[in-house]
Amino acid sequence: MAGIFITFEGPDGAGKTSVLNEIITKLSARLGPKLVVTREPGGTQIAEAIRNVILDTQNTEMDARTEALLFAAARRQHIREIIQPALDENKFVFCDRFVDSSVAYQGAGRQIGADEVWQMNKFATEGLMPNLTLYFDVPSEVGLARIQNFRADEINRLDQASLSFHKRVREAYLNLQATYPQRIILIDAAQPFENVVADALEAIILRYPELNL
Amino acid sequence: MAGIFITFEGPDGAGKTSVLNEIITKLSARLGPKLVVTREPGGTQIAEAIRNVILDTQNTEMDARTEALLFAAARRQHIREIIQPALDENKFVFCDRFVDSSVAYQGAGRQIGADEVWQMNKFATEGLMPNLTLYFDVPSEVGLARIQNFRADEINRLDQASLSFHKRVREAYLNLQATYPQRIILIDAAQPFENVVADALEAIILRYPELNL
Repeated sequence: MAGIFITFEGPDGAGKTSVLNEIITKLSARLGPKLVVTREPGGTQIAEAIRNVILDTQNTEMDARTEALLFAAARRQHIREIIQPALDENKFVFCDRFVDSSVAYQGAGRQIGADEVWQMNKFATEGLMPNLTLYFDVPSEVGLARIQNFRADEINRLDQASLSFHKRVREAYLNLQATYPQRIILIDAAQPFENVVADALEAIILRYPELNL
Repeated sequence: MAGIFITFEGPDGAGKTSVLNEIITKLSARLGPKLVVTREPGGTQIAEAIRNVILDTQNTEMDARTEALLFAAARRQHIREIIQPALDENKFVFCDRFVDSSVAYQGAGRQIGADEVWQMNKFATEGLMPNLTLYFDVPSEVGLARIQNFRADEINRLDQASLSFHKRVREAYLNLQATYPQRIILIDAAQPFENVVADALEAIILRYPELNL
């Protein structure tokens, strides 16, 4: 048996990281050392250094394609040092964000083009794709209101540029889900937290019944 | 009239940087402020930070594809901040190394594959290619002996891994030249320095007679 690679995806404010933490807590008893949880850049020295370049731009403006190439470089190193070795040891690897994030954020959000970002990332992944992706879907107004800490009905307070960006990101995720319905399972993340966790866990166990407690 | 983009390429030990310096000295009187000389990463803050990541790997091993993506990221930023603005101002831009170096070094030298590296770099360049490329060709034994500071006939002292690498790089350059004979002019860099400079200058002036002094 080869390892299993599961990714969590979604726009900001979808709550995917909290859901991932909750699910990991539940699964760690069952999986023990066969469970690997990671997120880009994954703590590798080189990938962290790349991440610092992305964050540290200070006064200079970083071009969107430069940024996309840097994310792909960090992803590559993360794959080589963390993800692939764990899969080779037949582990379950849960990763918070992967290629779909680049397609959604750089491709659609920053408007480079989803397909161009996808193609370029193939150079980084050499075809490694998740076995299963949970996409946490939330209306853009709700997601943005969550991260900006006010209620969705106060929509007039939303920054319109952020809202357009967020909507493009969500649309890209929905397109990816429609294109790869077998790999990407949509989870309604507008529900109460407990229900989101329950739906996510159910989707995982439906695909991997051996994870049932 | 649009700007003109000229690149200098070749394996280590071909002497292209010295030739470029010599030619720039000759052309600067003629071109004045219309002359821009640069080399990757080109002094942009972001590209220099990326270069530091490439050089600063310390104890960790950087994957060849990670490295290729980082070179492409630095190249992208260099294009956006330095090369394209200068071309937009109708300048003559001389650049020491560009995409061909990645094809030769990462593609062939590090054996990722020339075509894969070429395709990935298109994401960085969006099709910007030099109007003219001077390729300084030198037999691998001669080039390596030059950079290691001993005579070519002392070939038994050559590190065989370095020699194979250097030969792959040279072969890739020769393939590029055969594929793009209109863009890439081969200069015999095994000749005495003055002859190499003369040939290079002649190739440039043949294409751009307005540069004749």
